[in-house]
Amino acid sequence: MSIHIMKEKIAQIPVILKEKNIDLWLTFVRESDTIKDPAMDIFIDRGVTWQSAFIFAKNGEKIVIVGSLDADNIKDSGLFEDIRTYVASIKDTLKQTICELNPETIAINRSSNDVMSDGLTCGMFEILSDTLKGTGFEDKFVSSEPIISALRGRKTKNETEKIKKAVEITEEIFDMVTKNIKPGMTEKEVAEMILNYVKKRGLTTAWDSQHCPGVFATVEAAAAHASPSDRKITKGSVMHIDFGVKYEGYCSDLQRTWYFLADNETQAPLEVKKAFETVRDSIKAAFDAIKPGIEGRFIDKISRDYIIEQGYEEYPHALGHQVGKSTHDGAGLLCPEWERYGNLPYLKIEEGQIYTLEPRINLNNYGAITMEEIIKVGKDGAEFLSNPQTELILIDSA
Amino acid sequence: MSIHIMKEKIAQIPVILKEKNIDLWLTFVRESDTIKDPAMDIFIDRGVTWQSAFIFAKNGEKIVIVGSLDADNIKDSGLFEDIRTYVASIKDTLKQTICELNPETIAINRSSNDVMSDGLTCGMFEILSDTLKGTGFEDKFVSSEPIISALRGRKTKNETEKIKKAVEITEEIFDMVTKNIKPGMTEKEVAEMILNYVKKRGLTTAWDSQHCPGVFATVEAAAAHASPSDRKITKGSVMHIDFGVKYEGYCSDLQRTWYFLADNETQAPLEVKKAFETVRDSIKAAFDAIKPGIEGRFIDKISRDYIIEQGYEEYPHALGHQVGKSTHDGAGLLCPEWERYGNLPYLKIEEGQIYTLEPRINLNNYGAITMEEIIKVGKDGAEFLSNPQTELILIDSA
Repeated sequence: MSIHIMKEKIAQIPVILKEKNIDLWLTFVRESDTIKDPAMDIFIDRGVTWQSAFIFAKNGEKIVIVGSLDADNIKDSGLFEDIRTYVASIKDTLKQTICELNPETIAINRSSNDVMSDGLTCGMFEILSDTLKGTGFEDKFVSSEPIISALRGRKTKNETEKIKKAVEITEEIFDMVTKNIKPGMTEKEVAEMILNYVKKRGLTTAWDSQHCPGVFATVEAAAAHASPSDRKITKGSVMHIDFGVKYEGYCSDLQRTWYFLADNETQAPLEVKKAFETVRDSIKAAFDAIKPGIEGRFIDKISRDYIIEQGYEEYPHALGHQVGKSTHDGAGLLCPEWERYGNLPYLKIEEGQIYTLEPRINLNNYGAITMEEIIKVGKDGAEFLSNPQTELILIDSA
Repeated sequence: MSIHIMKEKIAQIPVILKEKNIDLWLTFVRESDTIKDPAMDIFIDRGVTWQSAFIFAKNGEKIVIVGSLDADNIKDSGLFEDIRTYVASIKDTLKQTICELNPETIAINRSSNDVMSDGLTCGMFEILSDTLKGTGFEDKFVSSEPIISALRGRKTKNETEKIKKAVEITEEIFDMVTKNIKPGMTEKEVAEMILNYVKKRGLTTAWDSQHCPGVFATVEAAAAHASPSDRKITKGSVMHIDFGVKYEGYCSDLQRTWYFLADNETQAPLEVKKAFETVRDSIKAAFDAIKPGIEGRFIDKISRDYIIEQGYEEYPHALGHQVGKSTHDGAGLLCPEWERYGNLPYLKIEEGQIYTLEPRINLNNYGAITMEEIIKVGKDGAEFLSNPQTELILIDSA
C-alpha cells in the first residue's frame, strides 16, 4: 500500500467534510486483526489492538487515540502526529478530545445501506455512547456514509493508475487462459492454472481465492459466488470466468465468456451468439448513458430493460458496483430499486468513480453468458478501463 | 480448516444453548470478504455476499438464509442442509423463519466486553430490527457473549492437538533463532529469518505478519505491538520475540527472552537475571492457582502482585488471553479490573480453555523481559502446552 496515496486520501477528508458540512468524522475500533472496520484501509496501513479512535475534523485536524502499546506502531506509519494514549480506559481521553473539538455533528461508521460505511459494531457503539453520556455530544451522531462514499468514490490519478494496471494484468491472464484451455479440463484445474500465474507474478487475487477466480463451465455450473468444482468443460458448451487481482492494494474485477466449439461447428450456436450480443450491447447502452449527476438506478434500468426487451429474464443482481481498494468499493451502485439495496439505487453518479458493468443472461441449455467491464466516470461521460469483449472467445479443439 | 472440527463445534451449539437457556442464536452478516463477523469462523468455512442469516436453535435445528447466488457455495460446504434463498429482499424469509421458530430469546452478536461476540454492525442491527418490527421478536434480543465464550473456550481434543502442534512449531522456530542470531543483526533481519522459515514450512503467521513476529532488541525497542525496525542487536543487551504460527486454522502465541553477553561476561547481569526469574516465578505462581470456577482477575492479581512485591512496576496489559482459531480467542481473560476490560475480569475460568500467561517487567537499562507460555485448563488445574522458559537464553559471540 502506497503511503503516498494514503496521504492523498487523507488530504481529501477535510475537503469532503466541508462540502458535506460535517464537523467531525470518528472511526472507533478495537482488535482490527479480528474484525476490521472497512474505513480503516483508507487512512491507515496497520492495525490496532485496544479500543482506538481515529478522528478527522473539518478544519484539517487529525487525532488518534490508542492504547499505550499501539502508539509506536501508529507513529511509525508517518500518517499521524497527534497521537494520544491510555492504559486503563480510553473514555477520559476520548471524551476530553471530543469536548475540545466541540463539534455540531459527529459522523460515525453506521449505515444500513453501505457495508463500507458500516464498520461500527453494536458493542463499540454502546461504549461510545456511554463515553459521551451527559456531554450532549451523544445526540450529535450522523452516518459517515456520504463521507466514505465520496472519499472512496473520488479516485485520484494515482489510484486510477493502480486499477488500470490490475485490469491489464487480468486481461493478460484471460489471454493466457484462452491459449491453454481445453475441453476435458475441470473448473478446478482452470482455477489452479490462474492461481499459479497470479502467484508467479507475486500478486494476490482481488477477493478470497476460494472463489476468485470463479470458473463456471457447462450448464450445471453453480451460481455466481461458488467455488470451482470438478465439473469438466465439454465441447459445445459455454464457460465464463469471474476474476480480478490486487495490484499494490487496488483491485480489478472482470468477467469473460468462452465458447467451446463442438466437432462439427465453426461458430457458436445462434442462441449463444444472440445472448452474447445482447449482453454486449446492453453494456454499451448503459455505458453511453453514464454521466455525473444521474442516479444509479437509471443506468441499471437501461441495461436491464434492453435485455428484457430481447425476450430474456432479468439478471438477479445489480448492473455494476464500484471497485478500488475493495472489489465492492462503496455506496454508489448501479442497481434496481430492490429493498435489499436500501438507498443505494438513488445515489447520484459522481465524477471520478470507477464502476463495473456486468449484466448476464442465463440460457437454459448453456448456462450464463456474461461479461464484466470496468469504466471510469469523467466530466461528461465514461471511459473504459478494460478492453470490452466484443466477440465470444471461440475455442476450437477439433 | 478441518470440516470435522467445524462439525464438532456445531454439535456443541445446541448443548450450550440449552445450558444458557437461550432459544436461538442468530448471526446476521453481509459482504464477509469486506467485514467478517468473528463468529462465522466457528461454523462456516467460506464467505457470503448478500445479507445472510445463520440461525441455530436450542432443539438442534440449523437454518441458513442467503442470497440466491450464495446458495450453492454454502451447500457445497456440507455443513448446512436447510438453506433458504431470496433475490430482492431477505426480510420476508427472515421474518417468517423467526416466527416459525417462535423463540423466547434471540442471541445476537453484540457485546461491549468481548470483540469475538461483537460482529453485528450498527447498520445490520437496524435492518434486523426493522425486519422484526411489530412481531414482538424485536424485544427478545440478548447478547450471544455467553454462547460464543463457551463455544470458543471449550476446546475439543482435536482443537487442542492443532494448538499443541502450532506451539511445537513455534518452539522449533525459537530454537532456530537461538542457533542463528548474532549481535549486529537488525530486528527486521531477525523477523525476515523467521518469516522465511514459516514460508518454507508452508504455514502462515498467527497474526498480521507486519508485526508477527514482534522483535524487540535493545532498550530503545518499541512497545509490544510495533513492527520490527532497523535497530541493531548489541552485545550486553536483551531481546524478546513475540510470535506464533497458524497450523490448520489454529494459533500459537509465545514469547521468549534472549540475552547477548558482553565480551567480558559469562552470564547476564544480576539485574536482568533477577527480572527474568521474577517473571518466570510469577508465571508459575499464576499457573499453580488456575482452576475452573475462579474469576480471571484473581489469577492476574497473583502474577501482578508478585511482580510488584519484588519492587517492579506492574505491566500495562492483561496476564493472559485465550488462544484458538484467533490469537485473542474470546471472552474469558486473565486481566485486572480496568474499565476497558468491561466485565471480562469477572468471568469464571472454565475447563477446556486455553490461555496464555505473559507478564513482563520493563528494565530502564535493558527494555522488556517477558515470556509468554500457553496452558490448558483441566478439571483440577492447568497443564502447560508450551515448554516454559526456565532460564534466559544466553548468546555468546565473544
